[in-house]
Amino acid sequence: MDRYTHNVRLRGIRAGIARLKADCLIATKPANVTYLTGFTGEDSWAIVLPGAVILVTDSRYTEQAAAQCRFCSIVERKEAMAKAIAELLRNRRGIKTAAVEKSTSLAVFESLRKHLPCRLKGAEGIVESARRKKDNSEVSAIRAAAKIAARAFERVLRQVKPGLTENKLAGIVDFEIRKAGGNNSFETIVAFGPNASRPHHQPTSRKLRKNDTVLIDFGSRLNGYCCDLTRCFPVGTASELYTRVYAVVKQAHAAAIRMVKAGVEISQVDTTAKEIIKKADLPAYGHGTGHGLGLEVHELPVVSNRTKGKLQAGDVITIEPAVYIPGCLGIRIEDDVLVTNYGGVVLTATCPRG
Amino acid sequence: MDRYTHNVRLRGIRAGIARLKADCLIATKPANVTYLTGFTGEDSWAIVLPGAVILVTDSRYTEQAAAQCRFCSIVERKEAMAKAIAELLRNRRGIKTAAVEKSTSLAVFESLRKHLPCRLKGAEGIVESARRKKDNSEVSAIRAAAKIAARAFERVLRQVKPGLTENKLAGIVDFEIRKAGGNNSFETIVAFGPNASRPHHQPTSRKLRKNDTVLIDFGSRLNGYCCDLTRCFPVGTASELYTRVYAVVKQAHAAAIRMVKAGVEISQVDTTAKEIIKKADLPAYGHGTGHGLGLEVHELPVVSNRTKGKLQAGDVITIEPAVYIPGCLGIRIEDDVLVTNYGGVVLTATCPRG
Repeated sequence: MDRYTHNVRLRGIRAGIARLKADCLIATKPANVTYLTGFTGEDSWAIVLPGAVILVTDSRYTEQAAAQCRFCSIVERKEAMAKAIAELLRNRRGIKTAAVEKSTSLAVFESLRKHLPCRLKGAEGIVESARRKKDNSEVSAIRAAAKIAARAFERVLRQVKPGLTENKLAGIVDFEIRKAGGNNSFETIVAFGPNASRPHHQPTSRKLRKNDTVLIDFGSRLNGYCCDLTRCFPVGTASELYTRVYAVVKQAHAAAIRMVKAGVEISQVDTTAKEIIKKADLPAYGHGTGHGLGLEVHELPVVSNRTKGKLQAGDVITIEPAVYIPGCLGIRIEDDVLVTNYGGVVLTATCPRG
Repeated sequence: MDRYTHNVRLRGIRAGIARLKADCLIATKPANVTYLTGFTGEDSWAIVLPGAVILVTDSRYTEQAAAQCRFCSIVERKEAMAKAIAELLRNRRGIKTAAVEKSTSLAVFESLRKHLPCRLKGAEGIVESARRKKDNSEVSAIRAAAKIAARAFERVLRQVKPGLTENKLAGIVDFEIRKAGGNNSFETIVAFGPNASRPHHQPTSRKLRKNDTVLIDFGSRLNGYCCDLTRCFPVGTASELYTRVYAVVKQAHAAAIRMVKAGVEISQVDTTAKEIIKKADLPAYGHGTGHGLGLEVHELPVVSNRTKGKLQAGDVITIEPAVYIPGCLGIRIEDDVLVTNYGGVVLTATCPRG
């Protein structure tokens, strides 16, 4: 992140603070703190003041903060968080109302109310809305995470063989992500055969058989940024049904990606994919076709038929249509797509399909 | 968990609700929901009413809830959580005040306030206090998690060799935990040489050298319950200083464990360990000597010199004295100890020391 990018980010955030008629924002959600300061450690908050951004951290993280935060001040607190922030605000003029993120717990909010020398207001989505439009550095970061996922997955594919359990294969995925230089962006899902019909399946000790099928939903995180992919493939010979359903899901996936472009109604992306599945006389999936991702695996926008609003240049979303037939099979294909004025750019294109 | 255990748990919780002058408790923290219902999935809350406990979940988890919850009712919600709970409470007489856990976010609290047909009160630590005293089923669960950690660590030790990076070794630890049948209870810390002087070090690409030293802080989780261990060992020949410091930390660790017994002042356990380190003219560690653990890796009680109160039978705590010499070395030895009326029982004793 350069100073220009930092300033652009802050302009949007400060407009949000002003709309709320507040004089500063206390950001407590880790992804928002990272967005505002560059800091990726824990237990630290960011305060956006009229002329400054301050990271409030403690002695465990001072060294890391100094290396990561280029455009904000760092305060190492010696006392409780609320007291340290009260101290900071007491020395500032004109702070009558502080906005506090509503994702903050009630306990923390009460301790702020007790200590702070100003009024408090709950703030919803100020930083999250700004985070929706990814800048160049963020797109590069997601690309870098995707590259790691692709490299890891290539190596995973070589190790898939009958006899492996879902648990063990999930372990292999995690290990390969780590060896490729990243971390998991969420708990890896590995589902064999009919287990794949449960979208949130947790890996079990079920063994991979001959002519079985595999679903892997995984992602890596690098410097705070996530990617999120799903790949499905048969081991040995696939059944005719599997092959047919796979082709339909692939078609829905491609059609949804073709729809992606700034200005397109988000709900239309969802309907396009689901229509193709319905036309093939298959059951449409219950979840949305995708979700935004960046510093969190799930962020704005939600890609579903209930979403109002249009795709915007700078959105990064997943496209993940699926078909689930309980007791029989589950197929989902998921990629991460950058929205531009000229269409969608698939950031996870180098990851093999299986 | 049998019905008797469930009833004992609820008796304590209901006393806490009564002390708060509330008529029911809405538990939103996942570990508390697990404690009250047995359910280990996500996005589900527990409601403790005078005559019943209800798990409110959604269609993704109904099957899992039916398998895991033996002594509570399950409600599958079709609408937003706050609305579903409002509906539930509307059909109950005599619910004038609902207690809501203070760990709940401000946004959720506001949506409950909007929908619920009764007054709301923030509740702090009702379930957490009850969770402190582990019953037999919980001690067995922690033991089972510890067994997995020990098995995994034995296999890790065989793979440690010069040339490995911290990252890769952390990957090996995670993979072995998975292969032994568990999951990580937190992000594994692997630190080589002087890196070990940072208690919260994140694994890097630093390679293990000949005659280097290793610190591994790791834990496994099984059926919701955690263990938490730290092991330190040299690869090749250790320096004289390392050997000397290790002996002192080991002595502090043993002395602290010998102190453990129901009725002992918690602060005394901390001071005992730190005194031994100070007497050896070494710097005492800045953190506490330990913390409770169970459904969460950090829970009550905190074992520090600022803690007021005594150890109680049924506490499970870590004992983790350390010596950190920045730029030089870090040594921490950590085990999990059950507090009984007759002394401490080390639950992680079968894990090799390195």
